[in-house]
Amino acid sequence: MAVRKAASDFAWEGVGRLPYKEADGVPFKAISRQTLFSDPRLSGELRYFEIEPGGFSTLERHAHMHGVIILRGGGQCLVGAEIHALSPYDLVTIEPWTWHQFRAGRQEPLGFLCLVNSERDKPQLPSTEELAVLRANPAVARFFDES
Amino acid sequence: MAVRKAASDFAWEGVGRLPYKEADGVPFKAISRQTLFSDPRLSGELRYFEIEPGGFSTLERHAHMHGVIILRGGGQCLVGAEIHALSPYDLVTIEPWTWHQFRAGRQEPLGFLCLVNSERDKPQLPSTEELAVLRANPAVARFFDES
Repeated sequence: MAVRKAASDFAWEGVGRLPYKEADGVPFKAISRQTLFSDPRLSGELRYFEIEPGGFSTLERHAHMHGVIILRGGGQCLVGAEIHALSPYDLVTIEPWTWHQFRAGRQEPLGFLCLVNSERDKPQLPSTEELAVLRANPAVARFFDES
Repeated sequence: MAVRKAASDFAWEGVGRLPYKEADGVPFKAISRQTLFSDPRLSGELRYFEIEPGGFSTLERHAHMHGVIILRGGGQCLVGAEIHALSPYDLVTIEPWTWHQFRAGRQEPLGFLCLVNSERDKPQLPSTEELAVLRANPAVARFFDES
């Protein structure tokens, strides 16, 4: 199928809206994933994530990179020890092994495309000690506690 | 730089707006390219193309695939022998060795993201004979003659 038409509200013909992660014990809230391009002949994948107001993605890091472009709404992201406000079409680069988390604003969703390599490693979650180090930064602690 | 903010009108901090192709004799009109993500650690690249009203991309084919998502405006694309109307967020998959061309509408630009493999072959242009075969389809001939 050469063209898959967009439906209203960031949904697409023939693309399933999946729960973000199925593993138990992984902390995230109110986020869905739609895989837009994934093919053995493409070495990258493009996915659309949408976080509902007040929701957030898992705080994680991994060897693979992310290239993100915001498509709708707004919010914030943590990249390393920095917090950035996000608006439509902003570009976010997540370097390898960098802690990162996306949070939607309280009043609006946050929708974004994420480019990754088709072959990639599994994310790591922070240990209690690593989380304490991150929280030692007051701005990061506020970011975690915001929702 | 973790975050590159979007400027107005689909431009980005630190991203150059480049002419589409520099080779002489390649037929295209009123199109610019911005490379949003290209990195040795990413096996895919994400580029933003924008075609001005009445403009079009080169008619070409190649071994590599394209994964396209429309971001703004509207127009049409030829994929193989089929013509598709395009609206924001539509997804277009260009299979290997498929002739393809994008055309903006007369009154609006056509802006889209294009995912490709970082390592890819050079596009082929149609020979006179191949162009005649494509033009033998009246709908395709109308598409070529529209602007």
